[in-house]
Amino acid sequence: MHEIRLFCPATVANVSCGFDVLGLALEDVGDELFLRRVERPGVHIIGITGADLPTEPERNAAGIVAQLMLRDAGVEWGIEMEIHKKIKPGSGLGSSAASAGGAAVGVNLLLDRHFDRHQMIRYAMEGEFVACDARIADNVSPVVMGGFCLVRSYDPLDVVPLPVPEQLHLVLLHPQVELKTSESRAVLPGQVPLKTATRQTGNLGGLIAGLYKNDYELIARSLQDHLAEPFRSPLIPHFDAVRAAAMEAGALGGGISGSGPSMFYLCQGAERAAAVAGAMEQVFKPTGIPYKLYQTQVAREGARSSIA
Amino acid sequence: MHEIRLFCPATVANVSCGFDVLGLALEDVGDELFLRRVERPGVHIIGITGADLPTEPERNAAGIVAQLMLRDAGVEWGIEMEIHKKIKPGSGLGSSAASAGGAAVGVNLLLDRHFDRHQMIRYAMEGEFVACDARIADNVSPVVMGGFCLVRSYDPLDVVPLPVPEQLHLVLLHPQVELKTSESRAVLPGQVPLKTATRQTGNLGGLIAGLYKNDYELIARSLQDHLAEPFRSPLIPHFDAVRAAAMEAGALGGGISGSGPSMFYLCQGAERAAAVAGAMEQVFKPTGIPYKLYQTQVAREGARSSIA
Repeated sequence: MHEIRLFCPATVANVSCGFDVLGLALEDVGDELFLRRVERPGVHIIGITGADLPTEPERNAAGIVAQLMLRDAGVEWGIEMEIHKKIKPGSGLGSSAASAGGAAVGVNLLLDRHFDRHQMIRYAMEGEFVACDARIADNVSPVVMGGFCLVRSYDPLDVVPLPVPEQLHLVLLHPQVELKTSESRAVLPGQVPLKTATRQTGNLGGLIAGLYKNDYELIARSLQDHLAEPFRSPLIPHFDAVRAAAMEAGALGGGISGSGPSMFYLCQGAERAAAVAGAMEQVFKPTGIPYKLYQTQVAREGARSSIA
Repeated sequence: MHEIRLFCPATVANVSCGFDVLGLALEDVGDELFLRRVERPGVHIIGITGADLPTEPERNAAGIVAQLMLRDAGVEWGIEMEIHKKIKPGSGLGSSAASAGGAAVGVNLLLDRHFDRHQMIRYAMEGEFVACDARIADNVSPVVMGGFCLVRSYDPLDVVPLPVPEQLHLVLLHPQVELKTSESRAVLPGQVPLKTATRQTGNLGGLIAGLYKNDYELIARSLQDHLAEPFRSPLIPHFDAVRAAAMEAGALGGGISGSGPSMFYLCQGAERAAAVAGAMEQVFKPTGIPYKLYQTQVAREGARSSIA
């Protein structure tokens, strides 16, 4: 394979009670990445659309990943890269993870699957580090593996794929306001009450059991985040009103996507999701804040290739 | 049904990474409870063997449960009760829960299954309150429901049954020393670092996924408790040496049963469990501390009846 065009999914990290350990890939919200194997060694970013991002590979989330993978695979050829951003950086929808994880999947295909899934995730985490200053895995893991991913441990890295219930749909609302990840992080407490920690483990356990059992009511009961949401939700415009509208319209539950400002709500079935999307839009339209609304499903695959 | 003899299983609460949210029932370690329907209203404890426990129903873990259930069911008859304790109070093996949960199951059978599982658990929690001053559910839930139980939430009470992998065996070592629950509780910190809380959620998620997937390696990797064990293990005699021996002999993982002093280790297969039991015994024998050693499996059923 010498050329490859990839769909690189947007992702929802945290997923409420899965704060810092869960992520999921979206079916049809994401970037495009084009990679071509060339004689000239090194990584050459020949075009970026949709966002103002550095073209030097070592400063670019996709570029650094490609650079490290080519180096470690010990090949003499290089890669030309075009990045077409559809997911805005700072949306809470894993923009840098789409680039980093997509590059890991794509370069690995050009390398005839030289690396395994955990290695790809590790490379993608280096892309996250370049973009966000943190080697986080909860967005890049579902970009690489698809579906729901549990980041059980970082040291050693251990990412567990979880099942995706058939009728699970998502509604996402992205208010087009800037919310810096550093600000979202700064509001989190360093310490939490032991009781709060155990409540969170109970809910995360319930959510995972619900995914295995296809038990939508258990999923709904478990979607409660006691660690991050109480502190971060005041930073998200109209969070409480959106939540009330989504729940009133029959969402299973939801909350902040990643560190925000996007919000996600899970629903059982497309029809219910459409009603929830409508209800969320009714809250947001009158506010005058520009927003994007998405209705989609959990992608079973991660970054998807189509030979160019 | 007018008379009933019950096996009331011992239980392991916490189960390492499931601190305060997980419990499991043991296959053949437990108490015996005998209940008989009599004309004379009220609960009459006519015999207790194996432990020095109060015979006034309102001060007895089994008695209070029976009393409350008869009252709420509005029946005019009463119950005679014999309690044969095989599990020592203060062992960390759910002695009071066996009595309280067993009474809930047994009385409910005499009441022609008047109450549902969550109601039985709630009554049994009143028994725990009488015995331990806390309405905890992680021991009584598996006594009522069997298997692995996740206590997702207390308010409202929501207990989720989890699958039990076929080849899962347990070894338990009960050092016959007194360790007060109040002392075990006092060493726990009120607050934990946020990072520690998320590590615990990752491991609990991994353990639950491992139970669903029959993935013994994932179960093994997930059996790490960052919330309680670091603080409680110094209270348990020879904890580190027992752990080292069990792991060296091939245990999947384990730790403190409930609030101790018993220790449990999970193993894949009976043969491996026998080796682990031997290794644990080799550590404990020379210490001169009296102990009991059990090798068993997870009970798929809770308290089991046989019509007398």
